[in-house]
Amino acid sequence: MLKLFHHPFSAASRFARLMLSEHDCKVEFVTERPWERRPDFLQINPAGSVPVLVENDGPPIAGAPVIMEYIDETRGYAMGDRRLMPNHPEARAEMRRLVLWFGQKFHEEVTHYFVHERIFKLEIPSSRGGGAPDSQILRAARANIRHHLRYIGWLAGSRDWLAGERISFADLAAAAELSAIDYIGEVPWDEDPHATAWYARVKSRPSFRGLLADKVTGLPASPTYADLDF
Amino acid sequence: MLKLFHHPFSAASRFARLMLSEHDCKVEFVTERPWERRPDFLQINPAGSVPVLVENDGPPIAGAPVIMEYIDETRGYAMGDRRLMPNHPEARAEMRRLVLWFGQKFHEEVTHYFVHERIFKLEIPSSRGGGAPDSQILRAARANIRHHLRYIGWLAGSRDWLAGERISFADLAAAAELSAIDYIGEVPWDEDPHATAWYARVKSRPSFRGLLADKVTGLPASPTYADLDF
Repeated sequence: MLKLFHHPFSAASRFARLMLSEHDCKVEFVTERPWERRPDFLQINPAGSVPVLVENDGPPIAGAPVIMEYIDETRGYAMGDRRLMPNHPEARAEMRRLVLWFGQKFHEEVTHYFVHERIFKLEIPSSRGGGAPDSQILRAARANIRHHLRYIGWLAGSRDWLAGERISFADLAAAAELSAIDYIGEVPWDEDPHATAWYARVKSRPSFRGLLADKVTGLPASPTYADLDF
Repeated sequence: MLKLFHHPFSAASRFARLMLSEHDCKVEFVTERPWERRPDFLQINPAGSVPVLVENDGPPIAGAPVIMEYIDETRGYAMGDRRLMPNHPEARAEMRRLVLWFGQKFHEEVTHYFVHERIFKLEIPSSRGGGAPDSQILRAARANIRHHLRYIGWLAGSRDWLAGERISFADLAAAAELSAIDYIGEVPWDEDPHATAWYARVKSRPSFRGLLADKVTGLPASPTYADLDF
């Protein structure tokens, strides 16, 4: 039995949910609010961050890139030619570079700003920094996402999928970040047709359905969030 | 032929140098100053960060955790029981969690502050933010390193090596971060005897010698930096 500690609008958690779904894993979900720093959860992951995966009575598998390697090592072989990890070490390196690019660089420069300011601050008590979004931070995130969309468009325009000829974990990592921002309507889809066409392909996969059903109380999804022909 | 684009006081670059040395790789080193954003280097790694490894005419392998997987995939098997990657997926997950802990969390909360303020700002032109260190930032880093040393001490006291019974990439990742801080004498070694004893064991490995010979122009190493019985 697999158990995933996650938050529905944590992009790294979304990446974990996508990979688990692509591998047809049955998962029990536990929603964690990392800002609460719940003592029992800190025992599981001293970093206090989501996602964390636990299989049966095994040790915690903490962090999306760590979960990725674990899922591939334990279940990748059974995927045959649907495997999300490329075969060659050089192609794996390019895929892993992009997973870190989206999980770290894109996340810090774009997703974290948008999601923290517009979603998490609705849930975080004001004593811990919750409240109204900071418009200066949102402005910076809006400038940054344009550069990043161009890079995604360049990758998607020069390759079939972001890391190469086949869909890989890199596509899921990137789409997970974008999906959280798309909920609040902050992805300028008009900017780059290659990026938009690539995202439409990832979004239409059955593994995406769970994400498209997520809701924030008091904040409806943008009109195109669950629309496959956005 | 392997070529490593690195900076001598980038902790992630030091991690790459340690792993390459542990695998007895012959490497050509190219010193890169990431703040210069050299156009030819941005072609190799659009993130503009070091380390980047290139093997013969192959594609760039960018980022320390990506280099780690590549080195293990291409050379780990030949290491036999000296392999730095544990055998079992669960043990690998714990090792990878710690590699990300040190490369991200420890780095952002401790190493980046110390090294940027006290070493890189000597080299960075004042027009790009170089100059005297910010004492408030150093104070925060000094508080943070105590918490982290306690965690390292707890790991080293309850296991033979940080990730388990055998030395692994996690020990190199942690020691790489500490070594850059040790150069400027900012590791409070009196705090935790387990952490200190563990670091002494890693520091005495032949792979460490190159790091201990590094020098910053105009800033001598702390008296204990190259001392194996510090």
